[in-house]
Amino acid sequence: MGHGSDVHRFDSDTPCRLACLDWPSSPGLAGHSDGDAAAHAACDAMLTAAGLGDLGANFGASRPEWAGASGEALLRETVRRLGETRWRVVNLSVQIIGERPKIAPRRAEAEKAMTSVVGAPVRISATTTDGLGFTGRGEGLAATATALLYSVPA
Amino acid sequence: MGHGSDVHRFDSDTPCRLACLDWPSSPGLAGHSDGDAAAHAACDAMLTAAGLGDLGANFGASRPEWAGASGEALLRETVRRLGETRWRVVNLSVQIIGERPKIAPRRAEAEKAMTSVVGAPVRISATTTDGLGFTGRGEGLAATATALLYSVPA
Amino acid sequence: MGHGSDVHRFDSDTPCRLACLDWPSSPGLAGHSDGDAAAHAACDAMLTAAGLGDLGANFGASRPEWAGASGEALLRETVRRLGETRWRVVNLSVQIIGERPKIAPRRAEAEKAMTSVVGAPVRISATTTDGLGFTGRGEGLAATATALLYSVPA
Repeated sequence: MGHGSDVHRFDSDTPCRLACLDWPSSPGLAGHSDGDAAAHAACDAMLTAAGLGDLGANFGASRPEWAGASGEALLRETVRRLGETRWRVVNLSVQIIGERPKIAPRRAEAEKAMTSVVGAPVRISATTTDGLGFTGRGEGLAATATALLYSVPA
Repeated sequence: MGHGSDVHRFDSDTPCRLACLDWPSSPGLAGHSDGDAAAHAACDAMLTAAGLGDLGANFGASRPEWAGASGEALLRETVRRLGETRWRVVNLSVQIIGERPKIAPRRAEAEKAMTSVVGAPVRISATTTDGLGFTGRGEGLAATATALLYSVPA
Repeated sequence: MGHGSDVHRFDSDTPCRLACLDWPSSPGLAGHSDGDAAAHAACDAMLTAAGLGDLGANFGASRPEWAGASGEALLRETVRRLGETRWRVVNLSVQIIGERPKIAPRRAEAEKAMTSVVGAPVRISATTTDGLGFTGRGEGLAATATALLYSVPA
């Protein structure tokens, strides 16, 4: 098992992409990619569970071929790398923490989108921090993830 | 497996309820319920592990019959819903992050109270953030939880 | 399974010790010990998974013999206590959240150091919070950990 988290600052000049969905009524998330914090946290959770390094080691500055790749693309590639080393995902749990976008009405849709990319159940919860901290002040959005994997015998 | 977190702001006009215990010497936690962040985080951890949605989807604004329900009531109902879908809890890990109340002297008691509601081992740790952030400034309290479940064959 | 987190404030009068390594070019972490937040979070994750209390209950103010002990010493003793109660570590996942030290170039080395102390795979990821919150402002460093254990029959 593994876990991870990611934070991106809001940037209203950018479209919002989160949990492999578009959120047209929300400001976007800054980042050299699409800022999809849910996908990024999920990648870190799966990569650490599998012992394959972290998001930065796999797709960071030293891997220019991934510069600007979407969270969905990184998620897809992470699952491919897990498969190559005979890891399968049992399930993935993601929590999105922030004031915007409003996840509740599209939570099930977001689960479906991430599940389809990962190929195993991805469950998403959403919460706020009661107005406290940078998420409460609406400065940015955080996501955390945990992943349970199993290893397929050779 | 699943995970969750919850944050509530302190509100000294309210009695403090946390981890299914009363804390008479601490300011309370604001919220439409009793603000029991430990119980709420535990619910989100179990619900996402079981693929049953999140706290809001189960007990939020669209479920007025649960408005104002205590964290303990939500925890009990969550476990009941897990049982209905043949999920059992292996164990639950909860961390309480904040300056108040002082958990250490009653940590074992809190574990016992939550374990009794959940019907499976709930382990609690407590920590502070070294004076940093909203928890360090004593503005609010955070709790995080992870849950491991197993599925009973039909 | 269990989880934990720890936060320490930076203190430039102290050498930096993190993930059982020295980081000579980074300010240190304040604390009654060496402030090794990664080791401390890992201890809480393992202790709660095993139902053995938390870091404070095992090594806190009521245990003066551990005052000032290094994170590595606490990690080693935690694993020993797990062994005494017939728990073994399947794996441990640690995330280091902060601006400094720069983990990426020594991430593999840190994994090796912690793995050697724990005697089971420890995987480390590192991230920042995009300039937000106390970690983003460089006031302190946070670490989170999750642990998966199994119990050896008597």
